[in-house]
Amino acid sequence: MRSKVSELRHKIKRLETLIDTSMVFSGILDIDDLLDTVMQKAEEVMGAEASSVFRIDEKRRDLYFITARGEKGKEAKEIRVPMGKGIVGWVAEHGKPLLVPDVRKDRRWFRGVDEKTKWVTRSIVAVPLIAKGKVIGVAEVLNKKGGRKFDKGDLDLFAALGNQIAIAVENASLYSDLDRLFLSSIRAIVEAVDAKDPYTRGHSGRVVEYALHIGRAVTRNKDKLKEIEISAILHDVGKIGIPDKILGKPGRLTRREQKYMERHPEFSAAIVEPIELLRKLMKNILHHHERMDGSGYPDGLKGKKIPLVARIICIADAFDAMTTDRPYRKRKSARTALRELKRHCGTQFDTRLVNVFINEFSKNRLS
Amino acid sequence: MRSKVSELRHKIKRLETLIDTSMVFSGILDIDDLLDTVMQKAEEVMGAEASSVFRIDEKRRDLYFITARGEKGKEAKEIRVPMGKGIVGWVAEHGKPLLVPDVRKDRRWFRGVDEKTKWVTRSIVAVPLIAKGKVIGVAEVLNKKGGRKFDKGDLDLFAALGNQIAIAVENASLYSDLDRLFLSSIRAIVEAVDAKDPYTRGHSGRVVEYALHIGRAVTRNKDKLKEIEISAILHDVGKIGIPDKILGKPGRLTRREQKYMERHPEFSAAIVEPIELLRKLMKNILHHHERMDGSGYPDGLKGKKIPLVARIICIADAFDAMTTDRPYRKRKSARTALRELKRHCGTQFDTRLVNVFINEFSKNRLS
Repeated sequence: MRSKVSELRHKIKRLETLIDTSMVFSGILDIDDLLDTVMQKAEEVMGAEASSVFRIDEKRRDLYFITARGEKGKEAKEIRVPMGKGIVGWVAEHGKPLLVPDVRKDRRWFRGVDEKTKWVTRSIVAVPLIAKGKVIGVAEVLNKKGGRKFDKGDLDLFAALGNQIAIAVENASLYSDLDRLFLSSIRAIVEAVDAKDPYTRGHSGRVVEYALHIGRAVTRNKDKLKEIEISAILHDVGKIGIPDKILGKPGRLTRREQKYMERHPEFSAAIVEPIELLRKLMKNILHHHERMDGSGYPDGLKGKKIPLVARIICIADAFDAMTTDRPYRKRKSARTALRELKRHCGTQFDTRLVNVFINEFSKNRLS
Repeated sequence: MRSKVSELRHKIKRLETLIDTSMVFSGILDIDDLLDTVMQKAEEVMGAEASSVFRIDEKRRDLYFITARGEKGKEAKEIRVPMGKGIVGWVAEHGKPLLVPDVRKDRRWFRGVDEKTKWVTRSIVAVPLIAKGKVIGVAEVLNKKGGRKFDKGDLDLFAALGNQIAIAVENASLYSDLDRLFLSSIRAIVEAVDAKDPYTRGHSGRVVEYALHIGRAVTRNKDKLKEIEISAILHDVGKIGIPDKILGKPGRLTRREQKYMERHPEFSAAIVEPIELLRKLMKNILHHHERMDGSGYPDGLKGKKIPLVARIICIADAFDAMTTDRPYRKRKSARTALRELKRHCGTQFDTRLVNVFINEFSKNRLS
């Protein structure tokens, strides 16, 4: 009787841990961070040496790793598993949890992954990840610690945890789909604006790329990087408001036309203004033509008064302008353009950010 | 000893139910549907007569209902609770769960809500909803069924369920924020395109409104309504590609200019084409100037061959065009415009949809 109570107590403890686990989900919608945290918790609860999460690729009819934790996780991530193959393939195909106390005694066991990764699998619990009644992936834990084998209790527990993992994967996917939709939609429209002037076709996309290279070198904060990306995409959207005859003029602009053209940062900012969630980006867009010495437009801001993201976009924008043809001049080489950036450090551009850009450029051989 | 085991068994059962509950979260990101389902489950598990979820309004320093289930739920939803006031306000302020077995014996109890709703509260369990370490709201269950009082066990269980509710609320909020960002961003850019021609300022926004009125009368499918909304927003985005001198021409267009203008649905569709998640909307946009008798453009599609959403946008678009001024004519009254729609039923417009629109129009007194 005593052992019965203690066994039940133990089960409760584990179920309570399980519920606590779900707390970590809160607010993390980055699928990589999220799954890593969840699977770390899962390993703790299950007493496992390693764990993986697979997603099904419907078109290719196979499974790929979205998380692989443990000693050989990195090596494992390269591998794809055909539907129906091995333990994971079986679970994906049948949509049922599977306990394999000893892999050597199970005919479904597929050695391939172990051979490639030099990992030794002894015992597996694998569960299907089901969202809206459909199998979307598989989660597994490998090798119970202390040389023991997984048992029926482990299977039940991991099946319950599987629901949580499935929800996390599905919610994160929905979110990242929508995020991709948002960015790609704005990009598609902005590209149509860029394309009005054949000389600026693809401009905004390249500015995003350059700006993100600088951004990644100065911060790892994902929100900041997102801010850079969205601000860069939208920096020239106000060109919608510039008449064709100025935007597509084959020769140099008159002084008056130039003045009008210089209003495009204001127009861009005005488009962003009604979008509540982007309002904090307005300043990045409005000030992307300011200069460090205060001689830029529209407000003649100086130095650090110019928002960081605006200073980044300014460099990316100038670099792209110099390295593409204009009706009245040929494009400069990247090397020459970088030298130009350097030459205008302190007056036009932020010196530190130009150095970062030059450094990133040589490291990544951009464009 | 026996009762100990049975009590533990009971606790396990409830915890397992709790975990199962989380399954329903899967894939539902509509906050209203989601919370209603979750709270229905919570009432079952807790044996409660009613339940509510509140969200904190940081600016106003009060709480508002996002879900109110039970007999008087509808009445309750109007009420706002100041921070620190009543049981719910106390939980929000202190960030701690609270068990109130008998509300008459608790000094924090605030009669106001009961008085307004004619509901009689006896017993409450309320827990803070915490996301990323911050209290974002409060969930409560009211009156244990069978005239009993909630106890400490109920409090523990609901505290665990509170984590799930918090996650659901937070994830749904993040998702709906991003969704709003997506729609409002596209809208802001499209409005800038509309504004290039002073006569079409605000056009796309009004077409969305009219199209959704027709849409809501023919379907309750949220995905379909979203499809209508996004297609309608983007139907004229291709006007970015139409030169200013045609778009803003004060007089009537020449035949050649007219032909070019008629390419705007193709341009709109071309902008949408690279956006993978919107590709299925392309046909709605491409065909919004087809006519039922096959005399429209670009493909001369006939009748039901024209996608439903395109037929809806066509009516909304024509109605808005007729009811706004043009350089060469004054706007028609809504009544006259509706008569025009009616007159061209079967040839230009889908008869059923025009009838729906007229019906909705008289019901809602649109515009």
